[in-house]
Order: sequence, then structure tokens, then C-alpha cells
Amino acid sequence: MIVLDMTMSLDGYVVGPDDSVDQPMGAGGFRLFNWLDDRNDDGPSGDVYREALATGALISGRRTFEHAGRWGGDHHDGVPIFVLTHDYDQNDVPPGSARFVTDVVSCAAQARAAAGDRNVMVHGAGAAHSLLAAGELDELELHVVPVLFGQGRPLFANLPTGLVELEQTRQLTARDVTHLHYRVVK
Amino acid sequence: MIVLDMTMSLDGYVVGPDDSVDQPMGAGGFRLFNWLDDRNDDGPSGDVYREALATGALISGRRTFEHAGRWGGDHHDGVPIFVLTHDYDQNDVPPGSARFVTDVVSCAAQARAAAGDRNVMVHGAGAAHSLLAAGELDELELHVVPVLFGQGRPLFANLPTGLVELEQTRQLTARDVTHLHYRVVK
Repeated sequence: MIVLDMTMSLDGYVVGPDDSVDQPMGAGGFRLFNWLDDRNDDGPSGDVYREALATGALISGRRTFEHAGRWGGDHHDGVPIFVLTHDYDQNDVPPGSARFVTDVVSCAAQARAAAGDRNVMVHGAGAAHSLLAAGELDELELHVVPVLFGQGRPLFANLPTGLVELEQTRQLTARDVTHLHYRVVK
Repeated sequence: MIVLDMTMSLDGYVVGPDDSVDQPMGAGGFRLFNWLDDRNDDGPSGDVYREALATGALISGRRTFEHAGRWGGDHHDGVPIFVLTHDYDQNDVPPGSARFVTDVVSCAAQARAAAGDRNVMVHGAGAAHSLLAAGELDELELHVVPVLFGQGRPLFANLPTGLVELEQTRQLTARDVTHLHYRVVK
């Protein structure tokens, strides 16, 4: 399964205003990650974090990849990182297990093959939109934080799809976050 | 307490694209209200519906009011309806228990007084923004439907506030909806 994994404010922002390489989460955006303080504990936030780290490949949007410092080429456990991008410089070789891919269908196929019987994790709003539009997104794990940002980079605004039906398959509430899991109905 | 009560798609839309008086919920927008099929049942959706109908006054945005056919002047039980609007025609007298109010602070005070020891319900994105910005919104009850609209009228986009901290106080999952309740931290 290809599973979008994103933390968002209740008003749907995944990054605060004015995000850049120097300020990757935008102004105030790291507020979203307070729940990760519990990532190594027992309980729901630890469970969903461990689940995310059990994925066998990562698909990332280009902006997310760059703003995250390319994760130094290793997001977790050295799993392959497929960076979905409109274009790239052939002389720019990403570090570690990362590679650039321009075709979303090929990207999904490569990531599924690399992950084997494990899931593929997706990071980034742009990658999510592209995969949804291509029918290649299977599930969503959203960590909804009880805060309104008011401004920032939205996860879902103006999707390049029509209506997409989902089935909610799990809901876990923990300190400072509610984890909602959905299956995309195809 | 002044409590925003809105149903939204997971991507934050409260109305589908192209809403108008003739198509008040926009294209496909009535999909959001499937959960109301369970409004008279036991269970979480019935509970939150009965809670909403126990409010003693309503604050509505102008657009919501007009698109709803002014509720024929009676939203529920004849409680006072305060319609927050930038301006209005003095010759346009709303029906039933509805009245136009242009000042948000006065609107909130009148609604609180009318509701007495009951809550005030708020409908409409514009009204929610104005009340939030004025510090007059106390709680949010959001009915989150497992569907992505992709387009439409967003509940929260571009709030005229900075970051607003919330405390999640209840989460109830029922058929085709998750009801999330928040307190605004002031």
C-alpha cells in the first residue's frame, strides 16, 4: 500500500507561513511536531510512529525533500527514497538512497517494488496530489493537531481530482494529536 | 458558550464548488450530510445532533442564511437567529426570529444574552472567522466526513487571525463521520 503520512493543523496546513530551506516548517510550523515527543512511548503516537518507520520505501515531493535537507540521503533505515519532481538537473545526484523520478506512475511502481510486502510512505502535499490524481494513493494517515494556523501551505487545497471517497479505518487520540487513517475508495 | 457547528470534508470544504442560492451546497455538496440520516438514532451522531438543537440562539453568516432560504425564519424551536453581515437594506426585514447584526462583538453579546444558560450555535465560515478574530468563539464541533472534495468553499482558509491554540475535548466516530470537539484556548 502507498500511504500518505502527514501532520496537519486542524485547518489543513502542513507548514506555517513563509516556508523556505532556512525555515523548512514556516513560521511557527514546528508546533505541529509536538506530538512526536511521544514517538518512542507506548500508546497511540508511538504505535503510529513505529508503523511509519516500518515502511520499505519513501515517496517524497521535491519541495519536502529539499526543505528537509534531503534527509542526508537516509530517511529511515536506508530505504529507497523516490523524489517526485517535474524536472531535475542530471548533474545533481541526490545523496544516499534518494533518486529523482519525474513520472508519477513509474515512481509508484518503483516504490511498490522496492518496498516488497511493506508499505510505501508518502511525504509532501505535491506528491500526495500527484499520486491521488494518478489513482496511486491507497491510504492516508493524518496526524491532526489541535491548532489553527490561519496561513501556510495547505495539504489538500485545490486538488487536481474530482470528489474522492474515503473510508475511515482508524482513529486514535493521544496527547496533542488525533491520528486518522483512511482508505481511498477506488 | 458560542460553539461553531459545521460539517466539512476531510480537505476542509463546507460546500462543494459553484454554490449559489439555487445550489446551496454547491456541486455534490449534499454528500456532506449523509451522516444526518442518523440524526434521530441513538449513538454519537444522534447525540451531537440533539446537542446542537439544544442551543438557545444561532449566529449565522449572511451567505449561509441566504443560501438556506433564511430557514423560513425558524432554524430550530424558534430561537433567535443573529445574522452577521457587513451591511443590509433597512427595508429588508428577515422573517421569524431572524435579525441582521453588523457588529461582531454586539452580535456575540446579544446571542449570549438570548441563549441564557444554553449554548449559542454558529453556522458559516465567514461568521466563524469574524468571531474567532474577535475572540468570541469558545468551542468548535466539527463533523468531519471521509471524502475529499478537491474544490469548494473552505471553512478555515486564510483566517484573519494568527495561530489559534485549541484543546480537543471530545472525539466520536460514527457511520460516515467523525465528530471532533475543540475548546479555543484564550
